[in-house]
Amino acid sequence: MTAISPRPQLHLNINALHSGFVPSAWRRPEADPRAFVDVAHYVRIARIAEAGKFDAVFLADSAAIVDQIDFRPITALEPTVLLASIAAATTHIGLIGTASTSYNEPYNIARRFGTLDHVSGGRAGWNIVTTADLPSARNFGRDTVPDHAERYARATEFTEVVKALWRSWDDDAFVGDPISGRFVDPQRVHAIAHEGRYFKVAGPLNLPRSPQGSPVLVQAGASADGLALAARHAEAVFSASQSLEEAIAYRRDLHARAAAHGRGPHAIKVLAGLATIIGATESEARRRRDALIDQIPEHYSLARLAGTLGVPADALELDRTLPDDLPLPGGGNGNHTFFHATLARARAGRHTVRELIRTLAGGGGHRVVVGTPEQIADDIAQWFAAGAADGFNLMPDCLPGGLQDFVDGVVPILQKRGIFRTEYDETTLRERFAASRAGEGGDVGMRQRHVA
Amino acid sequence: MTAISPRPQLHLNINALHSGFVPSAWRRPEADPRAFVDVAHYVRIARIAEAGKFDAVFLADSAAIVDQIDFRPITALEPTVLLASIAAATTHIGLIGTASTSYNEPYNIARRFGTLDHVSGGRAGWNIVTTADLPSARNFGRDTVPDHAERYARATEFTEVVKALWRSWDDDAFVGDPISGRFVDPQRVHAIAHEGRYFKVAGPLNLPRSPQGSPVLVQAGASADGLALAARHAEAVFSASQSLEEAIAYRRDLHARAAAHGRGPHAIKVLAGLATIIGATESEARRRRDALIDQIPEHYSLARLAGTLGVPADALELDRTLPDDLPLPGGGNGNHTFFHATLARARAGRHTVRELIRTLAGGGGHRVVVGTPEQIADDIAQWFAAGAADGFNLMPDCLPGGLQDFVDGVVPILQKRGIFRTEYDETTLRERFAASRAGEGGDVGMRQRHVA
Repeated sequence: MTAISPRPQLHLNINALHSGFVPSAWRRPEADPRAFVDVAHYVRIARIAEAGKFDAVFLADSAAIVDQIDFRPITALEPTVLLASIAAATTHIGLIGTASTSYNEPYNIARRFGTLDHVSGGRAGWNIVTTADLPSARNFGRDTVPDHAERYARATEFTEVVKALWRSWDDDAFVGDPISGRFVDPQRVHAIAHEGRYFKVAGPLNLPRSPQGSPVLVQAGASADGLALAARHAEAVFSASQSLEEAIAYRRDLHARAAAHGRGPHAIKVLAGLATIIGATESEARRRRDALIDQIPEHYSLARLAGTLGVPADALELDRTLPDDLPLPGGGNGNHTFFHATLARARAGRHTVRELIRTLAGGGGHRVVVGTPEQIADDIAQWFAAGAADGFNLMPDCLPGGLQDFVDGVVPILQKRGIFRTEYDETTLRERFAASRAGEGGDVGMRQRHVA
Repeated sequence: MTAISPRPQLHLNINALHSGFVPSAWRRPEADPRAFVDVAHYVRIARIAEAGKFDAVFLADSAAIVDQIDFRPITALEPTVLLASIAAATTHIGLIGTASTSYNEPYNIARRFGTLDHVSGGRAGWNIVTTADLPSARNFGRDTVPDHAERYARATEFTEVVKALWRSWDDDAFVGDPISGRFVDPQRVHAIAHEGRYFKVAGPLNLPRSPQGSPVLVQAGASADGLALAARHAEAVFSASQSLEEAIAYRRDLHARAAAHGRGPHAIKVLAGLATIIGATESEARRRRDALIDQIPEHYSLARLAGTLGVPADALELDRTLPDDLPLPGGGNGNHTFFHATLARARAGRHTVRELIRTLAGGGGHRVVVGTPEQIADDIAQWFAAGAADGFNLMPDCLPGGLQDFVDGVVPILQKRGIFRTEYDETTLRERFAASRAGEGGDVGMRQRHVA
């Protein structure tokens, strides 16, 4: 089934972040403010992305209200349930959902993503997060956030248990022979008997091997602990690099770390976060950006930036640059990825806080590109050719409009340049992520199909 | 929106138990052995039930392999994910899924069922179980099953936390005014600040009020602790009564217990488990039953019955009656509902173990009716008229065939007799369960609609 691609193909995920990544997106005249809890909104996004041949829909998540709901939508609908709805309305597109290792049990997560893989015919992916915020901790019996190293130690063991559970049924364990009456061969279904520091799980999973064997594992950590987890287990990584050089270095570093675990350079796809604001001309795109920013209350943006940086809002002044002595976020609020990205952004531009907010377009630290479809395609092609990314996790300013503009304007250019698929050739998300390795001498293991 | 029914209407749920309640159902020539992990199979069941105007699809669950997979399908796909897929393929039918209070966190359950309620437009229900088996305990870090009282104490607190989280957003908390920029009124979103024996949960939920306000709560306990939980919180109860008298007494007892919590007699619907084997004639139905039983290996049936009774398989002999001194199941395997139902069945008929297995039709203790559509409709009408049940949780022998036979044969008779709806009049599952109270003087509170 797997077509051999003539040359490397880039990967595109759509981050279906409610009304769009700009906090004021819900205020646009064409927006429905209720979209963040409307399944039809997410289905629409997924169908547009599928028409544009995207690899996957990605859903972020949190286990608490961690933003100011006075002013903007939050991630509200639980990803695995929402992705099952999307699965029913789509055919090809992958379905990647976020779930926390700090506030779940591995058996439950193995089942939910395994089930999503079954109901979607092999399109499921799990974005592994450790959940760094205090409000989430307080919804799960804790007064403080477990410290960074602790969260990642748990996440690593958690991931290993989940993978072992997914492997607990051999490919050929299911027999289903009505004549002999043999339903499953119990010799091919194995206890995992895991006993570790955090978990004790007997297994096996009460779910046969799913179409992908195991759902695709995705991760976004930029800290040393996060990189270590990604190097061992992730098949795709969401990065938040701001510059080409930084992105190339990040990807090279990740490859080196993966190699230490015997994993080839194509075993992990690096998908860089890419926020887009598209206009027919560059100045139209800038006007669109400015109009969106003007609709975000200043005190909200200030509080949000302070939250990203882990400092009190009154430590920042709108018309000054960032303080020089920002402390690295500690255990309680350590969102290293965005912290570093935002710092890099601010220092590269010597921005005042007000300018920084505008440059970030109200976003959380991901790179924002403002321009015409041609300009955005150029940027993507340049990063891809330079080895800065295997693809992108796209965050349009507004949804679904910004995605529709991307699919109508940017995708055809990428296809014309031969770096993006014009049809879906693969059946599963795993095969799709693996496909670009064809002809590149990547490891073969991951391309093996597991069909229960 | 709520139509006033001229007279009480019965409620029907379909228990979408993989290939059907008879363990050999998967071996029928028309069956697909893989149906238990095929979303299309469950969608087909739901659509047939919706064509038959059923109240809801019900999905059982377990958190381990608790049956002999050598011989039969198990509950494998996780209910909330599967129900989201079914929601996308249906319009009216309710969606009730099972989740354990022993091996989950209340915040996660509140979100998952709240999300299911959002994506289904107000059709979600949660069947609260405490999970009594040892294999499940061993998948969640335990060497033993928490004892019965402990499980129910946790379940009660768990349920209260979930309800508080569902109430943490006022109906009018969402503003969504693009002109003022006010998205949510934070004064109308409340922390729950729960601190109890088992849980400490700050809240609020990161999800606005769902279409039903709260998903419908369902429970199946027959023990004193189970009844106490149902009397306080359940809106529907699955019972496993074997005789009309027993069922009437059970329902009366539950109403009395509910009254002690200030709940009217119509606040809880009692849905009796009803396994059906349908034939064009009674003898055809019996032949169908016998053919199905003959395809279940004897040693499997014996082990299953022993499991239900909580005794070793070698304590039972096929050609003798049940031992007189069966101990009441303790903390480790206490499935009181089925234990009592099975005992009652055996003693009423003075059955040998072999006969008992045949009478149970390989089932787990639910009442089995074998006959023509007319006979089954008579049985249902009799129970309903006598106040033995508000409706039934239907378990056809084989799926989807046995359900199709019920919808084609039994439903039209019930409709002709005026005790079952011919159209869906209500929008939400909650309204549907409440509708039969119209004109019966039930409490009004439950009929109130909560639309976020």
